[in-house]
Amino acid sequence: MTDTPTHCIIDHDVEIEARLRANFEKSGLMKHLGARLGKILPGEVHLHLPYCAELTQAHGYFHAGATTALADTAGGLAALSMFNPGDSVLSVEFKINLIAPAQGESLEAVGRVVRAGRTLTTTQIEVYGVEPGKKTQVALMQQTVIRLPAD
Amino acid sequence: MTDTPTHCIIDHDVEIEARLRANFEKSGLMKHLGARLGKILPGEVHLHLPYCAELTQAHGYFHAGATTALADTAGGLAALSMFNPGDSVLSVEFKINLIAPAQGESLEAVGRVVRAGRTLTTTQIEVYGVEPGKKTQVALMQQTVIRLPAD
Amino acid sequence: MTDTPTHCIIDHDVEIEARLRANFEKSGLMKHLGARLGKILPGEVHLHLPYCAELTQAHGYFHAGATTALADTAGGLAALSMFNPGDSVLSVEFKINLIAPAQGESLEAVGRVVRAGRTLTTTQIEVYGVEPGKKTQVALMQQTVIRLPAD
Amino acid sequence: MTDTPTHCIIDHDVEIEARLRANFEKSGLMKHLGARLGKILPGEVHLHLPYCAELTQAHGYFHAGATTALADTAGGLAALSMFNPGDSVLSVEFKINLIAPAQGESLEAVGRVVRAGRTLTTTQIEVYGVEPGKKTQVALMQQTVIRLPAD
Repeated sequence: MTDTPTHCIIDHDVEIEARLRANFEKSGLMKHLGARLGKILPGEVHLHLPYCAELTQAHGYFHAGATTALADTAGGLAALSMFNPGDSVLSVEFKINLIAPAQGESLEAVGRVVRAGRTLTTTQIEVYGVEPGKKTQVALMQQTVIRLPAD
Repeated sequence: MTDTPTHCIIDHDVEIEARLRANFEKSGLMKHLGARLGKILPGEVHLHLPYCAELTQAHGYFHAGATTALADTAGGLAALSMFNPGDSVLSVEFKINLIAPAQGESLEAVGRVVRAGRTLTTTQIEVYGVEPGKKTQVALMQQTVIRLPAD
Repeated sequence: MTDTPTHCIIDHDVEIEARLRANFEKSGLMKHLGARLGKILPGEVHLHLPYCAELTQAHGYFHAGATTALADTAGGLAALSMFNPGDSVLSVEFKINLIAPAQGESLEAVGRVVRAGRTLTTTQIEVYGVEPGKKTQVALMQQTVIRLPAD
Repeated sequence: MTDTPTHCIIDHDVEIEARLRANFEKSGLMKHLGARLGKILPGEVHLHLPYCAELTQAHGYFHAGATTALADTAGGLAALSMFNPGDSVLSVEFKINLIAPAQGESLEAVGRVVRAGRTLTTTQIEVYGVEPGKKTQVALMQQTVIRLPAD
């Protein structure tokens, strides 16, 4: 319709990815747990967490704390992807239902923005246990985060 | 009133502590994060998590995932302390409000049973940032866990 | 593919609808608020709540309590639709984010089962403010219910 | 210690009570359900809801929606009691555990501020079923509200 050059859109995505990656890499916990950034879209972020014994609870499943750390980060990054450069994000609160034993070769958390507000943003995060040829949803989270403007 | 010997009560507490300690030590995540068991009472469990760079989010505070992992475990162990020997516990869901930046030399999570049911138990967990001479509440969690009977 | 007669499916749906309608009509609160049953599918139930001054909070919007009562009922009925005849349903807990002012000619709550378990079922409920030609999401709920078998 | 006249404190309490009562009376839903304001302290508000058939779910207990409406209002008013005159309050989100059947001659909700912030305030609400000579806790809520400053 207009002559907006395609590379602007690409630049926008590159800017978001760079910003989210920088935020992710400053998190000591994500590195300590072994989490990895996956697909990044405006308002949607995927994270992956390979299974290892350091992440387990007493029955050998992923500990709910590991599942939750991944989900919280995916939701916060999904919100951050909608913010302005320089803004930062803090979790206000969240609630998670652990709907199946968290098992598999890895977990995948998919965070999506439900509503982005000026101050508060609501997100939803699904977490899957991933095995070859099969994904099973293991958790569902609803989260509120707050935007801290760059000022 | 009766001549119930004191050592029975002591034995009961010893049994609970041994059971909770065994459960805690089977959790790879708690060891990986550096969490330690503190005070144990029937229906109340304290956990401690010393600060280190491996536990942080992008601003250098404790990551909400670390705070939550500690709180979830404290609530689950508080519930387990009320169960029968051989029973185990799984988290069904929880919700946490992060009411202040999670900072300090360590975090202390205090989990308490609000209502113990045959199947479902409701707990509440307070998390404090601990500095010399000062404790500041940083989070409040409400949790539902399920009892898996010893069969 | 098979010769399963269509009327069996119809009968199944009729049975579900009759069961949900009976449950809904036993709720004094739903009648008192003026709520109405809408579309019923296995695992998905729609409820409607026309606006009136008896449902408001101090600013004239639908009170969060009205929004929540509708959402809780939609989720409970969605779960009940998956249960066996004679089973009943109780809410264990839920969490709701009120993401926009709850306004409009009516509210529509859409409850869906996320995972149906033998004992516990997780549902998700979206609530919309409905105006002519326009629906705006005003709330998102995550709910746990328990099945009470007919025995 | 000082000669601050007692009536200043009384005036402060009177101002809070007047402000909360005005807010409460503008809520059509609270009137429609038959709720009544009880004790008011800075940061703590009690509400009462007498049982009647208009408040029930399918088993004849108080509907979770009625319990929740009462709890949400008690938490919001507890927060409002800490705000400046002219400020108003909106619920952002809450989570409630329904820990026992909600029965009794009336419900009593006790809302307390856990942490009052400039923008967001966290509250906790306990709900009791009240019978002659006996109170039983039936629900526990954790709530986030937002302050809307005067003008």
